[in-house]
Amino acid sequence: MERQELIDTIKEKRSFLCVGLDTDINRIPEEFLQHDNPMLAFNKAIIDITSPYCVAYKPNTAFYEQYGSEGWKTLEQTLEYIPNGIMKIADAKRGDIGNTSRQYAKAFFDNLNADALTIAPYMGRDSVQPFMEWKEKWTVLLAVTSNEGSADFQQQQLKTEELLYEKVVKTAMNWSDSEKLMFVVGATAGEHIRRVREMAPDNFFLVPGVGAQGGSLSDVATKGMTADCNLLVNASRSIIYAKNSANFEDAVRSACEKLQREMEQLLSARGVI
Amino acid sequence: MERQELIDTIKEKRSFLCVGLDTDINRIPEEFLQHDNPMLAFNKAIIDITSPYCVAYKPNTAFYEQYGSEGWKTLEQTLEYIPNGIMKIADAKRGDIGNTSRQYAKAFFDNLNADALTIAPYMGRDSVQPFMEWKEKWTVLLAVTSNEGSADFQQQQLKTEELLYEKVVKTAMNWSDSEKLMFVVGATAGEHIRRVREMAPDNFFLVPGVGAQGGSLSDVATKGMTADCNLLVNASRSIIYAKNSANFEDAVRSACEKLQREMEQLLSARGVI
Repeated sequence: MERQELIDTIKEKRSFLCVGLDTDINRIPEEFLQHDNPMLAFNKAIIDITSPYCVAYKPNTAFYEQYGSEGWKTLEQTLEYIPNGIMKIADAKRGDIGNTSRQYAKAFFDNLNADALTIAPYMGRDSVQPFMEWKEKWTVLLAVTSNEGSADFQQQQLKTEELLYEKVVKTAMNWSDSEKLMFVVGATAGEHIRRVREMAPDNFFLVPGVGAQGGSLSDVATKGMTADCNLLVNASRSIIYAKNSANFEDAVRSACEKLQREMEQLLSARGVI
Repeated sequence: MERQELIDTIKEKRSFLCVGLDTDINRIPEEFLQHDNPMLAFNKAIIDITSPYCVAYKPNTAFYEQYGSEGWKTLEQTLEYIPNGIMKIADAKRGDIGNTSRQYAKAFFDNLNADALTIAPYMGRDSVQPFMEWKEKWTVLLAVTSNEGSADFQQQQLKTEELLYEKVVKTAMNWSDSEKLMFVVGATAGEHIRRVREMAPDNFFLVPGVGAQGGSLSDVATKGMTADCNLLVNASRSIIYAKNSANFEDAVRSACEKLQREMEQLLSARGVI
């Protein structure tokens, strides 16, 4: 998917919502358990309900891999079911030596036909660049994540005074451009969101951590939104396991609508729409 | 697998060889292409030939994932085929927020029944610790990798004067013990091998980079071997695509035997056997 198409979709849908498909069979409504493949049936229902309100879906591969080849099949079928025009982000956090990263790129960009893939930066340039060889496919590099452990290494100060994640962002900016390089910046990262935006003025951020993890949507928009938006804010558990109504469909739809309305206001306030 | 069992196997087989099952369908001998599943047939042949000489197998998940659910099935069948008593290391370089890392642990430790899993440290403590909750299962944390990109971040100096990988090793040593924590230390890492050994005197190292990547086995042994060995040295391409004989079986066997004999000498010189 091209950058301009993503920006156009955001403006059209008045939303920068990414729905995380972190499907846990122990948490889905009982009505789905009668299906041959409850995870797939649930995902299809979620996609049917949420697709008017979101611009991206992000299945996390862990939730599928735990069921082995059957789970991987469900991942394939889920990605196939996502309507055209909505970005498919495989949240897989891969990265390996060059030759091996190229196999991962084939797995996700060719075989699964994902538009984007999350990548861990620890192994450096030759572990990341192979993903950038694919046209109209996105490398979504971990910068500052939304979890507590982000402080352990990502926020360590280097001898040059920069923090590690700053070095990661600055270095990766030399490897590609805003047409195919995004950064993962946690909604819980506070001032670090602003810092990454200074370093990467035109790059999309994929922002987890709103909702169940406690990050604030308006804070993210204040610190990270540009005139082209350049944000994808992910919500998983707060949407797919929404419990604000006795009816599953209503609960999911209203959780999604609420976020979309907030996003519309933020887009409007920033002059994106 | 318990640490003592691994050490006993090393002494008994006079080998600390790990065979990397990075199977590339474009590089396997033509005779396998007639099988329904050429990758699986090739892996079974490799395991049959090499199992007397090695103490571990390490399939890299990228090579299987590129074929989607079918490839994952091949990974399952390959791991099932590995004889008892030989360690199964899934080289997957996973790591995610805590709840998600737990799903990965289920995928690899429960569903695939791997003994060990490689993990990337960038996301910190709560991304790594869930893997340590499983009994007799190993977390193999990336410290200094064998690729060029290792210099980009891993070898950056922190304000405290330590290099990033030193901080990673030192921090992770507080999370678990040598019964279930290994480190990935590249054969090409030179003096850094010695440095990790100083910090982690009893931990196993999984060492890639001998063979096709240019690392030296004797150098690794000098810098990293302990009285209990505590090394697993991986070779993939130099064994499974060995071309030192016109006959596939002979070529693989002799490449494997040669490494085992070198390892036997090094174990003997160090007094392990």
